[in-house]
Amino acid sequence: MSEMMEATAGLQRTSLGDEIVARINELGTISETPEHLARIFLTKQHRAAADLILSWMRSAGMNAHLDAIGNVCGRYEGERSGLPCLMLGSHYDTVREAGKWDGPLGLITAISCVADLNRRGRRLPFAVEITGFADEEGVRFASTLLGSRAVAGTFVESVLNVRDRDGITMRDALTQFGLDPDHIGAAARARSELLAYVELHIEQGPVLEAQNLPVGVVTAIAGATRLAARLTGMAGHAGTVPMALRRDALAGAAECITTIEELCRTDEGGLVGTVGYIHAMPGATNVIPGQVSFTMDLRAPTDVHRNKAVADIVRHIEAVARRRKLELQVDVTHENRTVPCAPWLRSQVADAVAAEGFRVFELPSGAGHDGMAMIDIADVAMLFVRCKGGISHHPDEHVETADADAGARVLLRLIENFRPNATAAP
Amino acid sequence: MSEMMEATAGLQRTSLGDEIVARINELGTISETPEHLARIFLTKQHRAAADLILSWMRSAGMNAHLDAIGNVCGRYEGERSGLPCLMLGSHYDTVREAGKWDGPLGLITAISCVADLNRRGRRLPFAVEITGFADEEGVRFASTLLGSRAVAGTFVESVLNVRDRDGITMRDALTQFGLDPDHIGAAARARSELLAYVELHIEQGPVLEAQNLPVGVVTAIAGATRLAARLTGMAGHAGTVPMALRRDALAGAAECITTIEELCRTDEGGLVGTVGYIHAMPGATNVIPGQVSFTMDLRAPTDVHRNKAVADIVRHIEAVARRRKLELQVDVTHENRTVPCAPWLRSQVADAVAAEGFRVFELPSGAGHDGMAMIDIADVAMLFVRCKGGISHHPDEHVETADADAGARVLLRLIENFRPNATAAP
Repeated sequence: MSEMMEATAGLQRTSLGDEIVARINELGTISETPEHLARIFLTKQHRAAADLILSWMRSAGMNAHLDAIGNVCGRYEGERSGLPCLMLGSHYDTVREAGKWDGPLGLITAISCVADLNRRGRRLPFAVEITGFADEEGVRFASTLLGSRAVAGTFVESVLNVRDRDGITMRDALTQFGLDPDHIGAAARARSELLAYVELHIEQGPVLEAQNLPVGVVTAIAGATRLAARLTGMAGHAGTVPMALRRDALAGAAECITTIEELCRTDEGGLVGTVGYIHAMPGATNVIPGQVSFTMDLRAPTDVHRNKAVADIVRHIEAVARRRKLELQVDVTHENRTVPCAPWLRSQVADAVAAEGFRVFELPSGAGHDGMAMIDIADVAMLFVRCKGGISHHPDEHVETADADAGARVLLRLIENFRPNATAAP
Repeated sequence: MSEMMEATAGLQRTSLGDEIVARINELGTISETPEHLARIFLTKQHRAAADLILSWMRSAGMNAHLDAIGNVCGRYEGERSGLPCLMLGSHYDTVREAGKWDGPLGLITAISCVADLNRRGRRLPFAVEITGFADEEGVRFASTLLGSRAVAGTFVESVLNVRDRDGITMRDALTQFGLDPDHIGAAARARSELLAYVELHIEQGPVLEAQNLPVGVVTAIAGATRLAARLTGMAGHAGTVPMALRRDALAGAAECITTIEELCRTDEGGLVGTVGYIHAMPGATNVIPGQVSFTMDLRAPTDVHRNKAVADIVRHIEAVARRRKLELQVDVTHENRTVPCAPWLRSQVADAVAAEGFRVFELPSGAGHDGMAMIDIADVAMLFVRCKGGISHHPDEHVETADADAGARVLLRLIENFRPNATAAP
C-alpha cells in the first residue's frame, strides 16, 4: 500500500482524475447484481462499500468511522485538533439500474483532495470532514435524505417503523447492519462544528455539455412542487358522439399539457415543468376517455418563482377545464423548498473555477441533493461536473476522466483557499 | 295465449311501445349475472333468449327456427308463399355490463310490427323476415358480426378454431349449443331472396336528443380507421433538463391529440376522431417521458372523406414529431369500409318518418351494425331511435316508451308502404 501511495504521489496533478476514476470503477463493482448496479441502504453490499470508503479515508490520513445511521465519516484535522470543519460529502447509495457516478464522484473526489493535502503534509486553519451519506436516494424505505437528515438532526424517528418491500423495518435493517436504531440522534452535528457544507456532484442534466464546460457553479437546489390532477368528462362511443357534443377528458388533458409546456418554455426564470404520468380511462381505442389523471412536477430556482408558476398553471388548467365542461381536481402531493447556495460560499467556488482556468457558469440544480438537509445546520454550496448526454440514474451515466480531474482541481483549490464566512459567528 | 292476443289487438296503436318495453324488460332478465346484463354468444342464457324470441315470432304468426350459427330466423309469408322478403333484424347478444336496448329494440320492434300485421290479417306483396343475429358484439371470440356474416355468406371458417377466455373453441361452443359447426354455410342466404335489409337500432349517441327528435334516418354506417402511434424522444430527469433541451414524448403526444381534435372539430363532413388510449413511459412523476404510445380512431360518412382525413392527420402528426425531434411510428391496426344506406330505401324510411309526423333528420351511424355484413347480399337502411343521454353499452342505456312506440310506428308504416327497388332485378 505504501508503494502505491508513493507512486500516486509522484504523478502529475492529472492523476487525481485517474485515481478518482479507478475508485469509481472499484466501488461500482459492489452491487446486488453484477450487471445492474444497485447498492441499496443497509444491504450487505452497502456495508461492503462503507468499509471500502473507510479504508480510502484512512489511507488519506483521516480518522474515519460509521455514524449511527450508517454514514461514513472521515475527519482530517486542521492546524490544531478540534477546529470547526469544512464539510465535504455526497452519498454512496444508488438507485436500481444505477450509474456509477451519482453520489460516489463527490465522495471519492473529496477523499482524493484530502489525500493530496495529506501527501503534502498540508494542514489548514480548519478541519476538513468528509461524509459519505448512507441514503440519499430513498429507494429502500421511500424516504430520501435519511443520511443527511440524521447529520442535520432532522431525522424523523417514526421512519424507523417503515418496512421495505420484503417487510423488513428500517429498525431491524439498522440492527442487522450493526447499528443501534435507538441512537440515531448521536449522528446529529451542531451548527458550531461546521463552517460550511460543499458538495461536488455530476450535473445529471445536459446544460454543461451544451455549454462545453467541465464544471459549473450551482446557484440553488431548486424546490419542487408535485401536483396530481384529475379531469372528469363523459365517456362515450368513439363513433357516435359528434365532436361538438364531447366532453373528452384526454383532449382536455392534452391541452393542459401543451399549456404547461408553453408556460415553462416562455418563462425566463429557469422554471421547468413535467407531466411524467398520465392515465386515461376507460382506455379503449373506441371509447372517448371519461376521466384522465396526470401528474405535474414544477421546479424553479426560487420558492417565490415556483409558487407563482404553480398558481399560474393551476389557473390556466382550471380555465381549460371550465371551457371544456370538465370537472377538475388538483392536489399538491409533494413540496420541497428551494435551498439557495450561500452567496459568500458560492463566490469562493466561482473563484476556484476561474483560478483553474474555466469560464464561471452558474446553473440551478434541478435534482435534489443532501444539501437540502444540510442547510439546517450549515451554509451550502455545490459544484457540478459535466456528465455525458445529461444521462443519470442509468447504466450509461458517464464522466470523462478529464472532467473528473477538473472537478477535483477546483475542489482542492476551494479547500486550500477556503475562508469561513466573516459575518457568521465561528 | 289467445286471450292475451285478443286483448293486445284491442289496444290503441300506442300499445306497440308498451309491448316492446315489456319484452325488452323480459329479455333483459336473461343474463349471466342478475345485476350486470351479459348475454354472450352460445352461452346457456343466449340459448334461453333465442327460445324466448322464437316463441315471440311464432305468436306473431311467423315460421321460426334457429339457423346454423344460432341466428333466430322468422318468416311471415306475403300474399303467396315463397316471395322474396324484406328482411328486418338486429342482434340479441350483448356486451358485458350491457344495456337492455342495444340490439333487442330492433328485433323486438320488428316482431311487434309483424304481430300487428298478423292481427289485422294483412299480407303484403312480399314476405317479411326477421333475423335476430346471434353475435354482433364479438365479445366471446373477439370477432364481430358473426351472425350477419353467416347470413351474408362471408363467415370465415377459420374463426371456428378461435378460443374464448376459457379455452373453448367456437366449434365446441356451437356443438354444445346444439348446432353443427360443419354446416354454417347453410345459414347463407341468396341475394335473390332479399329485397332489402332494414334495421332499427338505438342511436348510441346524443344527436337525436340534442335535436329533440325520437327517430332519425341513417345515411351510412361510417367506416373506421384505427391507428397506433408511437413517439420516441429522450427520457430525462424532470428537474435537470431545461425546457429547450427536452425531447418530451408526452408533450409531443399532447400536441398531436389537440391537433387531431382541431382537425376533426373544424371538419364539415362529419369526421370524428378519438384518442382513447395513451401510455407514457417510464411513467414516473419526476421523469420526462421518453416514449408514448397512443391510439387513434377516425370515422367519417364516406371512405373518401375518411381516407383523406387519415392522410391529413398523419401528415400533421409527422410535422409535430419532426419539429420536436421525436421519432414517430404509425400503423393502421383496423379498417372498416363505409356502408352507405341505399338512397331508394333511405327515402322510403324518410317518407315513413314524415308520414308519422316527425321532422326528417338524417345522421350517420358512427357505431358498427349488422348492415355492414348484410350489404354483401342486400341494400341496407337503418332507422335510429333516441336513447337517453347518448349512453350505450352501459346499464344506464334507456329509451322512453313513447320513443320506442314512435320507432315502431315508423317501421310498421315503412313495411306496409315498402316498394322494392324498381331498378334492381327481382
